[in-house]
Amino acid sequence: MNKFSFEIKKKMDGLGRAGVITTPHGQIQTPAFVVVGTKANVKGITPEMLEDVGAQVVLANTYHLYLEPGDEIVAEAGGFPNMMNWNGPTMTDSGGFQVFSLGEAFGTGVSKVASGEEIVVSERKGYSKTNKNAFIDEDGVTFRSHIDGSKHRFTPERSMEIQWNLGADMIFAFDECTSPLADHTYQQEAMERTHRWAERSLKRHNELDPDNIQALFGVVQGGRFQDLREESARTLGAMDFDGFGIGGSFNKDDMAQAVGWVNSILPEDKPRHMLGIGEPMDIFAGVENGCDLFDCVSPTRVARHGRIYTKNGSINLKNARFKSDFMPLEEGCHCYTCQNYTRAYVSHLLRSSEMLGQTLGSIHNLYFIVKLVDDIRQSMYDGRFEKYKKEFTDRYYEKKK
Amino acid sequence: MNKFSFEIKKKMDGLGRAGVITTPHGQIQTPAFVVVGTKANVKGITPEMLEDVGAQVVLANTYHLYLEPGDEIVAEAGGFPNMMNWNGPTMTDSGGFQVFSLGEAFGTGVSKVASGEEIVVSERKGYSKTNKNAFIDEDGVTFRSHIDGSKHRFTPERSMEIQWNLGADMIFAFDECTSPLADHTYQQEAMERTHRWAERSLKRHNELDPDNIQALFGVVQGGRFQDLREESARTLGAMDFDGFGIGGSFNKDDMAQAVGWVNSILPEDKPRHMLGIGEPMDIFAGVENGCDLFDCVSPTRVARHGRIYTKNGSINLKNARFKSDFMPLEEGCHCYTCQNYTRAYVSHLLRSSEMLGQTLGSIHNLYFIVKLVDDIRQSMYDGRFEKYKKEFTDRYYEKKK
Repeated sequence: MNKFSFEIKKKMDGLGRAGVITTPHGQIQTPAFVVVGTKANVKGITPEMLEDVGAQVVLANTYHLYLEPGDEIVAEAGGFPNMMNWNGPTMTDSGGFQVFSLGEAFGTGVSKVASGEEIVVSERKGYSKTNKNAFIDEDGVTFRSHIDGSKHRFTPERSMEIQWNLGADMIFAFDECTSPLADHTYQQEAMERTHRWAERSLKRHNELDPDNIQALFGVVQGGRFQDLREESARTLGAMDFDGFGIGGSFNKDDMAQAVGWVNSILPEDKPRHMLGIGEPMDIFAGVENGCDLFDCVSPTRVARHGRIYTKNGSINLKNARFKSDFMPLEEGCHCYTCQNYTRAYVSHLLRSSEMLGQTLGSIHNLYFIVKLVDDIRQSMYDGRFEKYKKEFTDRYYEKKK
Repeated sequence: MNKFSFEIKKKMDGLGRAGVITTPHGQIQTPAFVVVGTKANVKGITPEMLEDVGAQVVLANTYHLYLEPGDEIVAEAGGFPNMMNWNGPTMTDSGGFQVFSLGEAFGTGVSKVASGEEIVVSERKGYSKTNKNAFIDEDGVTFRSHIDGSKHRFTPERSMEIQWNLGADMIFAFDECTSPLADHTYQQEAMERTHRWAERSLKRHNELDPDNIQALFGVVQGGRFQDLREESARTLGAMDFDGFGIGGSFNKDDMAQAVGWVNSILPEDKPRHMLGIGEPMDIFAGVENGCDLFDCVSPTRVARHGRIYTKNGSINLKNARFKSDFMPLEEGCHCYTCQNYTRAYVSHLLRSSEMLGQTLGSIHNLYFIVKLVDDIRQSMYDGRFEKYKKEFTDRYYEKKK
């Protein structure tokens, strides 16, 4: 019995669509913003606050929970959703992105071992300029913990086993996340490996979860190259996944185009998750190019540093001009923070390094971005997406006062 | 019209009593634990969470709010209770304690200027071993901000003006907080100055607030010396204060005794606040020696470091043995944290430096200490205080398993 389904309710002229994902823990109206709860909690936010901002679904990071507290402890706790007391739909990522971007320190630069030969990726414009690394071979990735430097290994099979322990409704096949700067040769090699890992992920998933309690998404790679993105979409689209992630970093300029290449090929009847993307303009671009889910740490991360979203663009509450500004963070906003506190108060808390300031700012930014995607979805049902997009982006990206 | 009143509802055999304080923002059942919201917020805790833990009254620190965001901005916001969205009774302290313990850096050691002569208090066992100082003269105290080193001056009149701007229901006369180690000569000198400052505080308070919207508490000093404590209680007790604070640091051993000396003399019909005290044993000692109010940062401060109160003594959730302990923080506890999360989860959050862990721990500890004082009060009404005290302390201070 497959407890997971996706239904398209409304199509736009191009690739865009609105629909409903059904999971064992409830439905998700799509397009939807997926709130990131890295270590089985959204930083400074209780599950009640999450409900209050309208969050439909929470994504936790496999890499982080594997290291702390460990996926076996999470399994004992009944899965990360139970552990954090979130009753709605959930996802975990594959661990691939963090392994490649956070795994630390065998040597200098990002490194790769293929066929026994070590190639330093950073020397050919690898994705990282910092002192981080991970060793890749055909079977998997060996990496060091960013916490204590201990050595670990992920394979597609391990990623499935860990994600089974973490217990989310939707999980991702193990993939290699490449740099947008990597060349065609490397991107192709990594993509082909990702496809082989996708098959292995599917196989292990089916062994662990014959009843399909968890839905498995494949991750399309291929970097900036049209031929590779299309090949990846064709190859993965032919496999028996419940949905798809679109991975890899993009440059702002060609992101919409690359997503369009992929979504023109992926099976229409399965949901598509644009991984790690969450700035307003990117969400509009993703939606009109056929993406259904978006996750990003930005709303809470930037809030902790004082950056607050408003319909007129973002403001930095640490700026001295907000010290005696007794307006809500955003006029007319219905979030808990704006209903009860002023810019002056949250500015005071943030400048004083009080964690409540980070919480109140995060509540507003999460409400803002969740509601933006809700409003986008409604504009699609109402047949006025283009109008809404123009109104919103004109105002948001207008030269700041 | 005085909007402030205190009524004793039940007396014990000795000095202890239970009663009700009425303020413009509601009643306080005494004895009561006063939650500390230093910078107009309880660290990591929303006002709704405060209500949920049963908090009756919040105390903010004059020194901190004077420096950040500044008392004039707080006045513009309608006072700190309005700013932080707390609708119940409130207090501010005099600023004296923080000025003496946090004011930084003219030279080395705690210093004092009397009659133009500088005396380094630390050389005669002053209260601080660190590089902090403040200069005291008859008129007031000059100190440097711990934030940016800027120079500031508090006098009794300034303290009243600042506390008027901060807008609490109950405020404190400006006092000099001395070290418990200071000798009789210095304690007497400081106490007599505190008495002169008390008169000046009263005078300025009556000018600022002819309608007695704010209740003013005098602060009894005198260190460890019986003659001084008694003289301070007699002198201040004869002044027209609405209540009294008992200030200064005590050694654990003689605290109960010193409080007893004071409360045998202070007018019975006015509430007494034991300043900065909040460990369970100290609260029992304060209650049976006639104190009505207790404030302390400990419940939230120790929670942020992982120390969690239970009826069997405190535990440190960062300890490895809690990694896979799926019990609530305290069995049978009805706080939000214990009702929804496990030791393993909060331990994971605290060890991962996630601020939600600090919030969840703080909620439990605040609930624990507020409820302890509630239970103490109930035991007084039921005529079983001694029995309750013995049961609680036997269990709490029993050798830890």
